[in-house]
Amino acid sequence: MELWYKEYHTPGVAFCLKVKETLFSGRSSYQDIQVIDTWEFGRILLLDGLVMISQRDEFIYHEMMAHPAMCLHPTANRCLVIGGGDGGTVREITRHDRLSSVTLCEIDSQVIEISKRFFPEVASALGHDPRVEIVVDDGVRYVDQHRDTFDCIFVDSTDPVGPAEALFQEDFFRKCHAALKADGILVAQSESPTYHLDLMGRVRRALLSTGFTHVYFYFAPVPSYPGSVWSWVMASKRYHPTRDLGTLRGHAWSKDLRYYNLKIHKASFAMPEYVRQAIAGPIDCTTRDET
Amino acid sequence: MELWYKEYHTPGVAFCLKVKETLFSGRSSYQDIQVIDTWEFGRILLLDGLVMISQRDEFIYHEMMAHPAMCLHPTANRCLVIGGGDGGTVREITRHDRLSSVTLCEIDSQVIEISKRFFPEVASALGHDPRVEIVVDDGVRYVDQHRDTFDCIFVDSTDPVGPAEALFQEDFFRKCHAALKADGILVAQSESPTYHLDLMGRVRRALLSTGFTHVYFYFAPVPSYPGSVWSWVMASKRYHPTRDLGTLRGHAWSKDLRYYNLKIHKASFAMPEYVRQAIAGPIDCTTRDET
Repeated sequence: MELWYKEYHTPGVAFCLKVKETLFSGRSSYQDIQVIDTWEFGRILLLDGLVMISQRDEFIYHEMMAHPAMCLHPTANRCLVIGGGDGGTVREITRHDRLSSVTLCEIDSQVIEISKRFFPEVASALGHDPRVEIVVDDGVRYVDQHRDTFDCIFVDSTDPVGPAEALFQEDFFRKCHAALKADGILVAQSESPTYHLDLMGRVRRALLSTGFTHVYFYFAPVPSYPGSVWSWVMASKRYHPTRDLGTLRGHAWSKDLRYYNLKIHKASFAMPEYVRQAIAGPIDCTTRDET
Repeated sequence: MELWYKEYHTPGVAFCLKVKETLFSGRSSYQDIQVIDTWEFGRILLLDGLVMISQRDEFIYHEMMAHPAMCLHPTANRCLVIGGGDGGTVREITRHDRLSSVTLCEIDSQVIEISKRFFPEVASALGHDPRVEIVVDDGVRYVDQHRDTFDCIFVDSTDPVGPAEALFQEDFFRKCHAALKADGILVAQSESPTYHLDLMGRVRRALLSTGFTHVYFYFAPVPSYPGSVWSWVMASKRYHPTRDLGTLRGHAWSKDLRYYNLKIHKASFAMPEYVRQAIAGPIDCTTRDET
């Protein structure tokens, strides 16, 4: 008997992976959680039936979540990750020696426990690095308790339905803006331009009206995610995502990376024409000097 | 009844598209040819059961096949396309006003006829543009009949099995080198780094030993292709793919593009670390100044 996992990216597109075995299946207070082992992508964490991370390509997603902002910000030492209970984003952030603390605020403690058990290489910084604090709480509420506190905030959320819906709203972005220091940077995963251009446009407009100086999308292909190419939005109070970037040469940590490098950083902000035209909208600051 | 098309990207990964109807199904002297209409990707051309082009994302593949070389070469006016019987690469090449002739050398005349019939927007330059010459012939043989003739050669082949296998061999690259002028550029599709790093390494070594001065890969995500991200190799006798690039500003044709722009050109040559490490090999010229 062949077991296959099937994820519908849209009603007319499905991505199928041949499964070796199901390693875990359960339900937390928030969502269904499953871990499957696949032939081509290794172990995969599913939340409500959708791929969150795969062992094969999580390095692309997590490196691109963490390093663009961590390398851009010249002194980032206090960081916050909202969501991302698997620990991959925290793992990448802790590669930076100047970090003094990173808080992981995950609403679902079960995700953290499952990741520690089945993805130890992803959760490697959780419980082992004294700079990492774990808070099990609602991200919106947690951010709202802080002012002028963080250098970088990373929103490592699930798709904008269910528990993560609030993390794509202007109200939440305002709270993040307030919780960031005067030169702070917010990064959020912002879905695939292949299927979610509308969402990207809304997120961009919300961030611009929140008062960030620079709002730019960047991109990387993540094979296990819908639409081939994934996007993140970087909203920065002071530093321009590419023009204010220093050099990575000499950073000892960078030798362990498998996707990110200095050229990839700059390249990832290049915007395909169809994306630029679709999301530019009435406020044209994002694309002013990027096309 | 729901009809679904299923392509196995590897024995453990399948990509499935919901089908409205099958528009054509037949067999030429070389391959099975089918045209299906899908809900999410529009019409799709299948050769031997594999996706060649989809209406939804063919612009990405064809723009990235044609424009990097056509924009880099300062005087390209005589071009050759090998394969690419659908006409999409030729359509993009003919956007450039300075072009005086482009020859399409396709081994399978049926592909050309099917594309004209079912993909008129892709085949738009075939039979309508006096600069376009169509030759139904074996690409290796055709190239071997020319010396010092072409400014740019584009190898728009199927996967390296069956009829296209010879198009990934050193012997063929030598013939292309000889058929190019002293400042000529060869571009070839080179599969996905997600699944074909070995092939990319072999292609790179073959092109370097053929005597090209610059051999660089570039990348773009093509949602309907295996592995999310696609690669092309550019082998250039004189011009460096990014350093010798002029400006696109003022080119009237560029306003019709949907993927390619000047920043995308430069960005597409940025190499993810895992690709660089896998294909660098003993000859390190490709990555010398690109990381």
